[in-house]
Amino acid sequence: MNTDTKEWLELAEIKAELAERDWFMGTSGNLSIREPDGPTFYITASGKDKRKQTDSDFLLVDLKGSPVQETELRPSAETLLHTVIYGKTKANCVLHVHTVENNVVSELYGDEGSVTFRNQEIIKATGRWDEDSEFRIPIIYNHGDIPLLAEKFNLHVQDDSGAVLIRNHGITVWGKSGFEAKRILEACEFLFQYQLLLNTQLAHTASLT
Amino acid sequence: MNTDTKEWLELAEIKAELAERDWFMGTSGNLSIREPDGPTFYITASGKDKRKQTDSDFLLVDLKGSPVQETELRPSAETLLHTVIYGKTKANCVLHVHTVENNVVSELYGDEGSVTFRNQEIIKATGRWDEDSEFRIPIIYNHGDIPLLAEKFNLHVQDDSGAVLIRNHGITVWGKSGFEAKRILEACEFLFQYQLLLNTQLAHTASLT
Amino acid sequence: MNTDTKEWLELAEIKAELAERDWFMGTSGNLSIREPDGPTFYITASGKDKRKQTDSDFLLVDLKGSPVQETELRPSAETLLHTVIYGKTKANCVLHVHTVENNVVSELYGDEGSVTFRNQEIIKATGRWDEDSEFRIPIIYNHGDIPLLAEKFNLHVQDDSGAVLIRNHGITVWGKSGFEAKRILEACEFLFQYQLLLNTQLAHTASLT
Amino acid sequence: MNTDTKEWLELAEIKAELAERDWFMGTSGNLSIREPDGPTFYITASGKDKRKQTDSDFLLVDLKGSPVQETELRPSAETLLHTVIYGKTKANCVLHVHTVENNVVSELYGDEGSVTFRNQEIIKATGRWDEDSEFRIPIIYNHGDIPLLAEKFNLHVQDDSGAVLIRNHGITVWGKSGFEAKRILEACEFLFQYQLLLNTQLAHTASLT
Repeated sequence: MNTDTKEWLELAEIKAELAERDWFMGTSGNLSIREPDGPTFYITASGKDKRKQTDSDFLLVDLKGSPVQETELRPSAETLLHTVIYGKTKANCVLHVHTVENNVVSELYGDEGSVTFRNQEIIKATGRWDEDSEFRIPIIYNHGDIPLLAEKFNLHVQDDSGAVLIRNHGITVWGKSGFEAKRILEACEFLFQYQLLLNTQLAHTASLT
Repeated sequence: MNTDTKEWLELAEIKAELAERDWFMGTSGNLSIREPDGPTFYITASGKDKRKQTDSDFLLVDLKGSPVQETELRPSAETLLHTVIYGKTKANCVLHVHTVENNVVSELYGDEGSVTFRNQEIIKATGRWDEDSEFRIPIIYNHGDIPLLAEKFNLHVQDDSGAVLIRNHGITVWGKSGFEAKRILEACEFLFQYQLLLNTQLAHTASLT
Repeated sequence: MNTDTKEWLELAEIKAELAERDWFMGTSGNLSIREPDGPTFYITASGKDKRKQTDSDFLLVDLKGSPVQETELRPSAETLLHTVIYGKTKANCVLHVHTVENNVVSELYGDEGSVTFRNQEIIKATGRWDEDSEFRIPIIYNHGDIPLLAEKFNLHVQDDSGAVLIRNHGITVWGKSGFEAKRILEACEFLFQYQLLLNTQLAHTASLT
Repeated sequence: MNTDTKEWLELAEIKAELAERDWFMGTSGNLSIREPDGPTFYITASGKDKRKQTDSDFLLVDLKGSPVQETELRPSAETLLHTVIYGKTKANCVLHVHTVENNVVSELYGDEGSVTFRNQEIIKATGRWDEDSEFRIPIIYNHGDIPLLAEKFNLHVQDDSGAVLIRNHGITVWGKSGFEAKRILEACEFLFQYQLLLNTQLAHTASLT
């Protein structure tokens, strides 16, 4: 496989950066990037230590998630979620990571089916520029059956960029470029950390009254 | 543009250090440094990934915030806040960053209009050396209209060094040198982390009584 | 000693990675890896700064924990726990680390004798693939007498991979490879961080009602 | 000054490691190491960015804290605390750092005059090996007058290794070697983080009952 295309290198760089933040604990997470105008995309191979950079980190698959070349690598078990996004939108990059904070938020607000942020400057990073913009992230149940999970996930994939939390199963974000996808992911994680920290502070305030 | 002046290199170094702490989540934040005795300053270009170091990270603008050379780069959307500081004071460096902690503090104490610290050795890092010194940081409303925001911000810019929180929109600090601005910024972030951690501990104490 | 065998290098790499996360505070922790098909294993030497990489980081010992070569190095004081695992199972790697979170979990749930996780995608990293899998980690008392500690520890060593918390004395995990042991360790630490953060959020929720 | 002695290099290495953990926020903190059998020690120069490594990071002073060579460098303002330790004990290294956690602990337990830890394996890192060992860290008032502060500090300096918290002014630890001093410092910070995290968990437990 060609491991020095612009897309491969971009995905490798994003992977290295997210690994530095330790967002792939327990070999969790998967990433992909689409070939230009292509019906194919690079996706992380299954069962790898994502803190390392190797020539077999990614493999090229088609929009059904099947390898387009002879390879011993298996695509990530959750490739189906990536194909949903590439099949429906003009997104060119999909990032799925587990962080302690996104999992706790998904559990805490899971029964409500979504978590919503407003009055936060950093919301602009998701492409919402109005002063009173809301940023709502759906939270779906973590079906163990991947096709069923993909079907439920599909209901929340409309735009060329977006974010969905899977309950106790991390976040999936996508964007028109790797840069955009990463920017949205960082904004989401910032907002999760913010909300959880603010909650504990409000508990403090409540304890004083 | 000349990318190896003392000022460019100093700003690049500060940027790298703050990026290492992940203080530019979602491409947030902007930084600037003044040319010696000059009516011009380097400021971060808009829409860049600040974890990377490139020759187009900064551009040179005048005290109105307009580029002084032909360039494809756009100055940060919030350049106006920097021009307020350089126009009124002898500050030579301005740093604006979002951290989870500074945003939570800005929300928690926002209605009071400021947050005040005392009895903390680290306050000396802001240039306050008396044992009973107070360090008060104003918190202003985050007006979406930047000229209006700059006008409100302007009311709190008197000295050659200082710090202002914008509610849910990070902190802006300035100083007579990059070294001083960074020292003040670090002291502020330390104090924010301290206060938030202490609050949760006091909630614990209250829960036991 | 031969310091460039595959096993030495793998253990050195794991040590470097765990050190980067600061999981060896106060020179705590110890690690080992078994020689292929061998009755011998490499184990961290006692009293070293595990943030550094040297030729005397590990020594080779037999299944009784005695050095198999003339050496000035002493095996870790807790080598006995490693020999229990290698003597009973087909595990090839054992990792013992102190983190603030694993110690707090061991104290918080210590009286119950174990802590159990479920409905967490990341449990799959421990080899439990069913949707309703439970992951139970025993917590044993921290006997100062190492042979007694090893005896109690022994009761929880049945499988070729596993994890045991010692109260206020870190976690010990093992697996059929260094890769597996590290994956389980990361999953455990992720789950500990998750549980502790969720607890404080539930306290917040309770404070509002 | 000779900047490649064993002692200089050891102190530089410790400084680099503590800087990596961001334990010198706002240019706080100071470090020193004694020359072998000597009435002189290297101490951090005042007002430096301790994240950087330069030839003027340290200067050599006598047991009164006065430079023993012509230099433009000023010893740290708190050199007096180091001279107290070197004058009374056989310690060869002194480390003083501010962390958010040590400052919060110093405030939280300050009125009691000390904080005590027990039943923690990591206490062994301070040289206490008995199963029921206690580790008590005195907390003194932060007198702005350094000679007065040194006088109060002096009351808690008896052994060749130890630790003292100054209220909202960080921790000072010392040991017979740089290795020992760093090990004690890490154990202290681990214990502080542990205690603060446990407190918030107990608040959670209390909220449920």
